[in-house]
Amino acid sequence: MVNLRIPGPTAVPVEVAQAGAAPMINHRGPEFAAMAARTTEGVKKVYQTKNDVVTLSASGTGAMEAAVVNLMAPGEEVLVVSIGEFGDRFINLVNIYGGKLTSLKFEPGLAADVNQIEDALKKNPAITTVFITHNETSTGVTNPILPDLAKVVHARDRLLVVDAISSLSSVPVKTDEWDLDVVLSGSQKGWMTAPGLAFVSMNDRAWAKAAANPQPRFYFDIKRHQDSLKSGQTPWTPAVSVWFQLDKSLELMLAEGLDQIFARHHRLATKVRNGAKAMGLKLLASEGVESDTVTAIRVPEGMNGDDIIKTAIQEYDTVFAGGQGALKGKIVRFGHLGFMTDADIDSGLNALKGALTKMGFKA
Amino acid sequence: MVNLRIPGPTAVPVEVAQAGAAPMINHRGPEFAAMAARTTEGVKKVYQTKNDVVTLSASGTGAMEAAVVNLMAPGEEVLVVSIGEFGDRFINLVNIYGGKLTSLKFEPGLAADVNQIEDALKKNPAITTVFITHNETSTGVTNPILPDLAKVVHARDRLLVVDAISSLSSVPVKTDEWDLDVVLSGSQKGWMTAPGLAFVSMNDRAWAKAAANPQPRFYFDIKRHQDSLKSGQTPWTPAVSVWFQLDKSLELMLAEGLDQIFARHHRLATKVRNGAKAMGLKLLASEGVESDTVTAIRVPEGMNGDDIIKTAIQEYDTVFAGGQGALKGKIVRFGHLGFMTDADIDSGLNALKGALTKMGFKA
Repeated sequence: MVNLRIPGPTAVPVEVAQAGAAPMINHRGPEFAAMAARTTEGVKKVYQTKNDVVTLSASGTGAMEAAVVNLMAPGEEVLVVSIGEFGDRFINLVNIYGGKLTSLKFEPGLAADVNQIEDALKKNPAITTVFITHNETSTGVTNPILPDLAKVVHARDRLLVVDAISSLSSVPVKTDEWDLDVVLSGSQKGWMTAPGLAFVSMNDRAWAKAAANPQPRFYFDIKRHQDSLKSGQTPWTPAVSVWFQLDKSLELMLAEGLDQIFARHHRLATKVRNGAKAMGLKLLASEGVESDTVTAIRVPEGMNGDDIIKTAIQEYDTVFAGGQGALKGKIVRFGHLGFMTDADIDSGLNALKGALTKMGFKA
Repeated sequence: MVNLRIPGPTAVPVEVAQAGAAPMINHRGPEFAAMAARTTEGVKKVYQTKNDVVTLSASGTGAMEAAVVNLMAPGEEVLVVSIGEFGDRFINLVNIYGGKLTSLKFEPGLAADVNQIEDALKKNPAITTVFITHNETSTGVTNPILPDLAKVVHARDRLLVVDAISSLSSVPVKTDEWDLDVVLSGSQKGWMTAPGLAFVSMNDRAWAKAAANPQPRFYFDIKRHQDSLKSGQTPWTPAVSVWFQLDKSLELMLAEGLDQIFARHHRLATKVRNGAKAMGLKLLASEGVESDTVTAIRVPEGMNGDDIIKTAIQEYDTVFAGGQGALKGKIVRFGHLGFMTDADIDSGLNALKGALTKMGFKA
């Protein structure tokens, strides 16, 4: 058995994994309806929202596609703010689904700047919607600007779509207090559940926009999901066994308490950052915007990140993630979200140090 | 615990359910790559094909959407052959994604007629693609015409897309021998696995058509899935725990043997049909086209199918499915696919008879 220190899929607690092995049920029957009502309430608590939230049987990318096809018409002007690979995925989706794209890209390690976003909106008043990543898994950066950005976007009567796939449930995302129109998350991150489910919340602004949007959609049509949910169902057969897991993990999460979960993630993340710095390593993320769910550690001069990762697997049964795209070989990403304790962080840091030392690095 | 006698999701063997509770793995690592290679080979054996098969993290409807968006351009003329609710779903998808639809609908209980399909193709030579349901879950009918239909379609150099979601893995679908261009299936049917994965096979004709198709697609872009599979990955995070289950269920299925699985399904289906007839009940499906995976039983005069279903749950913990759309209340659907034995059929028939008797029906 390997020790996962990747930013998803994350380790699943045994009781959650076992919950997924329960006998199959009828997805059109009362047991499923009761479970869907219960998990939807639980997910809304974690989202800190009274808005509608639907659960899709898909990965986080499915939720991103859902956001684009429900909220952007072909030919519509939108702004994508990208601070890494997952921001770029929105750019890809917008281009594929016929949006007229303005993109605002920030260097890897930087957070987005709200003034530059405001300037982009001023410069092109035709932009209707802003897509942004809250927590960029590829660089270990959390954008701290969401509350301010929502004000900027709403002052112009525009819509804000937030990919919070790898943050929501691990760090605070105050959907209602921050007035976020559309928020996405995915089961395989802080939710301590296997991959296969994704969440989309929509407020009234978003529903109104979706209702008027002619973009073709079916599997990811949020309206169909919300309508079915009213009678305790999903429009298409849901991933029932993963849903069983979610039901159990929400029980664990709500028992721990949101504030406790957020405090734990912050404490563990700080430990990872301090541990890496103590070894003489540098972080990719700028100071003050480091993610509490994943840390991107710069690979020491003359070494290759992929070799470090291989060594950590071989010698310590510990799996880190590598850099993607232009960052390939240049960073090691240490995931510390979801079902994660101080001991898991210590063993992860130990594996990292051991692998580096074996390869000749001196702390 | 309830006894599922619905046409999916089906009961999952304990060892399959438990396989899904295994510790989470890195979806970009060698364990996942080995599993994906193994399951893809296994699925291809069940498909009886050498064509490429991809595994999507979605329900069967996701596979249907994938077929439509990969193979039909906006404005393209296509023919949908519908013998029930799931054929109508293709009609819905074609309309939503901008196809120019010709539909050929048959009354519930009837199979499709190959001569009428040929006439429709003759009448409108602009039709490029034929979509058809192999096994119609809503009426309990299996279309027996696929080999002949493939010849008719290919004689005109057209493409044939087959929804075999509720048949393939339970009854013979000879993808290569019958020369089927695109074939869909879903994990929660005869595959004895929880819902959450769907399969799409494509031959060279289909790949060529997909390559030239401008229809926007991302999550369901089959090319992206096939390209990722070459390096043992999926383009987006896969439903790993369901995939663990599939890996185990394929082991069980290949150990039982395809011919044995098909013979078992035929034997059990015959038992259901004979049992229902012995009670004086009538089937919806015409003689000779009854499905070996689900039997739609007509509700006796003066009774409501939904009441029968409620009684079977209350008195026998046995769950049948009801009629959909215009058939609501008029049929009871008895699923007999996947992990199913003679004893399961006997207890199902007993529950049906008991529920009917309690409601005043005399056999």
